[in-house]
Amino acid sequence: MLGLMQDWPLLVSKILLHAEVAHSDVEVVTLRVEGDEHRYTYGEMAHRSRQVAQALTRYGINRGDRVATLAWNTYRHVELWYGIAGMGAVAHTINPRLFPEQIVYIANHAQDRILCTDITFVPLLEKIKDALTTIETFVVMTDDEHMPETSLKNAVSYETFIAGESGAFDWPEFDENTAAGLCYTSGTTGNPKGVLYSHRSNMLHTFAGCLTDTLGVSAFDVVLPVVPMFHANAWGIPYATPAVGAKLVMGGPNHDGKTLHKLIVDEQISMTAAVPTVWLMLLNYLRESGEKVESLRKVVIGGSAAPRSMIEAFEKDFGVEVSHAWGMTEMSPLGSVGALTGKTSKLPWEQRLDLKCKQGRGVLGAEMKITDEENNELPRDGVAYGHLKVRGPWIAKEYFRHEGGDILDEEGWFDTGDVATIDPDGFMQITDRSKDVIKSGGEWISSIDLENAAVGHPDVAEAAVIGIFHPKWDERPLLVLVAQNGKEVPKDEVIEFLRGKVAKWWLPDDVVYVDKIPHTATGKIQKMELRQQFKDYKLPTY
Amino acid sequence: MLGLMQDWPLLVSKILLHAEVAHSDVEVVTLRVEGDEHRYTYGEMAHRSRQVAQALTRYGINRGDRVATLAWNTYRHVELWYGIAGMGAVAHTINPRLFPEQIVYIANHAQDRILCTDITFVPLLEKIKDALTTIETFVVMTDDEHMPETSLKNAVSYETFIAGESGAFDWPEFDENTAAGLCYTSGTTGNPKGVLYSHRSNMLHTFAGCLTDTLGVSAFDVVLPVVPMFHANAWGIPYATPAVGAKLVMGGPNHDGKTLHKLIVDEQISMTAAVPTVWLMLLNYLRESGEKVESLRKVVIGGSAAPRSMIEAFEKDFGVEVSHAWGMTEMSPLGSVGALTGKTSKLPWEQRLDLKCKQGRGVLGAEMKITDEENNELPRDGVAYGHLKVRGPWIAKEYFRHEGGDILDEEGWFDTGDVATIDPDGFMQITDRSKDVIKSGGEWISSIDLENAAVGHPDVAEAAVIGIFHPKWDERPLLVLVAQNGKEVPKDEVIEFLRGKVAKWWLPDDVVYVDKIPHTATGKIQKMELRQQFKDYKLPTY
Repeated sequence: MLGLMQDWPLLVSKILLHAEVAHSDVEVVTLRVEGDEHRYTYGEMAHRSRQVAQALTRYGINRGDRVATLAWNTYRHVELWYGIAGMGAVAHTINPRLFPEQIVYIANHAQDRILCTDITFVPLLEKIKDALTTIETFVVMTDDEHMPETSLKNAVSYETFIAGESGAFDWPEFDENTAAGLCYTSGTTGNPKGVLYSHRSNMLHTFAGCLTDTLGVSAFDVVLPVVPMFHANAWGIPYATPAVGAKLVMGGPNHDGKTLHKLIVDEQISMTAAVPTVWLMLLNYLRESGEKVESLRKVVIGGSAAPRSMIEAFEKDFGVEVSHAWGMTEMSPLGSVGALTGKTSKLPWEQRLDLKCKQGRGVLGAEMKITDEENNELPRDGVAYGHLKVRGPWIAKEYFRHEGGDILDEEGWFDTGDVATIDPDGFMQITDRSKDVIKSGGEWISSIDLENAAVGHPDVAEAAVIGIFHPKWDERPLLVLVAQNGKEVPKDEVIEFLRGKVAKWWLPDDVVYVDKIPHTATGKIQKMELRQQFKDYKLPTY
Repeated sequence: MLGLMQDWPLLVSKILLHAEVAHSDVEVVTLRVEGDEHRYTYGEMAHRSRQVAQALTRYGINRGDRVATLAWNTYRHVELWYGIAGMGAVAHTINPRLFPEQIVYIANHAQDRILCTDITFVPLLEKIKDALTTIETFVVMTDDEHMPETSLKNAVSYETFIAGESGAFDWPEFDENTAAGLCYTSGTTGNPKGVLYSHRSNMLHTFAGCLTDTLGVSAFDVVLPVVPMFHANAWGIPYATPAVGAKLVMGGPNHDGKTLHKLIVDEQISMTAAVPTVWLMLLNYLRESGEKVESLRKVVIGGSAAPRSMIEAFEKDFGVEVSHAWGMTEMSPLGSVGALTGKTSKLPWEQRLDLKCKQGRGVLGAEMKITDEENNELPRDGVAYGHLKVRGPWIAKEYFRHEGGDILDEEGWFDTGDVATIDPDGFMQITDRSKDVIKSGGEWISSIDLENAAVGHPDVAEAAVIGIFHPKWDERPLLVLVAQNGKEVPKDEVIEFLRGKVAKWWLPDDVVYVDKIPHTATGKIQKMELRQQFKDYKLPTY
């Protein structure tokens, strides 16, 4: 027997409709790519998003067609997001930090018909335009006054593109499982793969993301998502803020400490979110300038692990609560957020800090478990670690155009590729990437834990640990070091330093020095390249 | 084109699964009907709910069958709620405050197969048992030790009913639109009508209800839903608390000020919700005893309008934030909640209080609009008032077994039967019931506003305003008064008193005195009976 509740599809246009009627005069502020500041309201945003939908319809964009953006966080980017998805097309956010050949691959793979770009990226696009085989028209996200001379096909300014439209447009209703957005993961191996979000997944992610213990956004808040919209939906913030009536502040291309600080003070930002690199810049600026961030209530840190010292600095030196979050592009992206609970909030500071260094508690709707190699679930005791698997309505079931084949197991779980522990209070901690963990005699050794211990030595600049073949143990750890100021600490001394900091059987079988450890564009250690480099290395314990 | 996100149906069992893995040792405390206190955890609740599902399956309850409860807020009631709905049956909460013949009507109409009752209601049920034609078995929600002698058919104690079950049960997955719960509205006219909630509606209502500006429940909270589960799902709180890991405290049959105060202090309640009558008892107790409620952060008041003095007392005398909420059984029940916004929170106290006296801001997912008689939408200017209509995924589209026929208009809106204003910041205020508003010359006069103004006179004990036929104006207001201490203020003096407090053309055409104004069981004025009483009344202005 079915319930007798209304059929009200979960469509992202509902968010904008809600903001328009309930939070019409709440502000949206943007530091524009053109260099100036722009202010308007959700009421005006809703009107212009409908103009976008009308312009796309007039152009001939159909439901399901992909319309791409290559752009920073601005009000025009948000208008496009809602306008494209709201009419039933797919908003494809492309990361401009990718290599040009990756952008070409992604745009062609997605079969984007229109590409909307900031003026910043026009020169980049001009270089690759001949390789972009499906794009018919480039919309440059500015007005005619700031429109650059360009050889891009059918180039038109955004303001001209939407100028003729009245804004009198009813958002269509359709199946809530309709695709709304597309974002490619920049995996370290193989071609980028597209994650195709639906209206339903975006709406459920918005509700879950707004919960008090998640992002906790409310109509009291002024929110600055430093995290870009091309980076996993800016963690859902441009959906969350109009959903609850929070003021939205968009920083455009600006991520430096000084500009962020000025924005925080000028707009009285209460909540913000970004990767650790951004917060390092802000904290450095605050320390150098002696400035404060008094309006700031909460900083969400994700994308990669937040250093303990960063969490401590925000909480103790600047009185800002840190929520350590974890997710993936495949997860829309939110999986877990580090808000403390009634019980854990009463712990002494150092233990609270221990918990805040973990990757947070799973949100209702993002199921998590850890398993061993045979897919047996492991206990949530904070000690056992295993493959972190996730399941839920805003998690991918396959990649666009079925790239990479099936990605779920029989029970519908997605393997995150991370190794983690989960404690009895629900806090999850990533201990390693599955492919980087060292499998020694059937047991696992965390390369990350060993690296963290090694860089604690004052004469070690950087450390990387990889598994090397061993006839008895399968793999044993090799510690690869970069010396600080050229001072190479002898192997025995390094091992002695690590003793007591890690389990005895974790101690590396050898220590080698290199001039440089290879990194990806986003600063992560390229373990695969390192393994390639040491593929013929023979351990002294062989 | 459909998105490629996982198929993860929104089922209420997911809430309990989440609580079990993420908040396993968070407490659930109950003041039992047996008179003692009971404490356990969400982990144990989840286990026993699975035992309930097993016992019902063994009994032969099928998906879609109705299993009724006649019970106060207790842990067993919550176990039943999840156990019944989780296995795919329908949890039918019956209000024990209804007249016995209404209970008979409802149970027969719902075709309940099992009725689970508190020991308190066994005598009541014994009186009506022969009229209950579909109930095969009565489960008495206690253990064998407290089991009363009873003539109820197949009576068995709850603990015995579930004792043989292992708890090893996998919650089934099925269509999220499957019915999960049933609750009858006690309308003032006609037979009660059933609202049939779905798993989807309950889950979406849970997400929306947990938002910071709605109930704002988090893992920091200790929540006491004084509002009963048979009263519109206890406003969703028994779903909200395990969803976010808040401690849940159930007061059983106790609603008096002293017991509530003790519970608030003993359990360090941070958030609670009930109708104004309950808060009046608590405030009276606090004033008489000089006690405080220091742990209390927020009180949600709904069910009927919270008096201004009550909001002021909580906020100013006891430092407790009041959220004035509005909803209906047909709305699961949440429609709007009165959290202030960034902008409105900066207003002076009296203006903030004005806003808090309104019924709150609409939540994303509970669309609201006001219309005139021709269904034209009226402006959201805080002045225009019209029929309040709602639409959304946790709002009824029809009543159970199609009682009352179609209830939505062509565009899917449900007429709440209320007349309201909506201001530009989204705050809605109920000004009257549609059927009680006085239609004078095409304009509307609020009976509630007139009544509130009249009771401001020190010699008026109670006031009711009804519309009386007028040949020129269609209707004109008649003010019906009960004198304070027998002192009947003359008509002219009453009119003079009202002048300036309401618009001039609202002033009543006549004033009459009665000994008693008729009331419903829940204390509301029975306008219909009053109109019947004065149906032949001729106004002096005729």
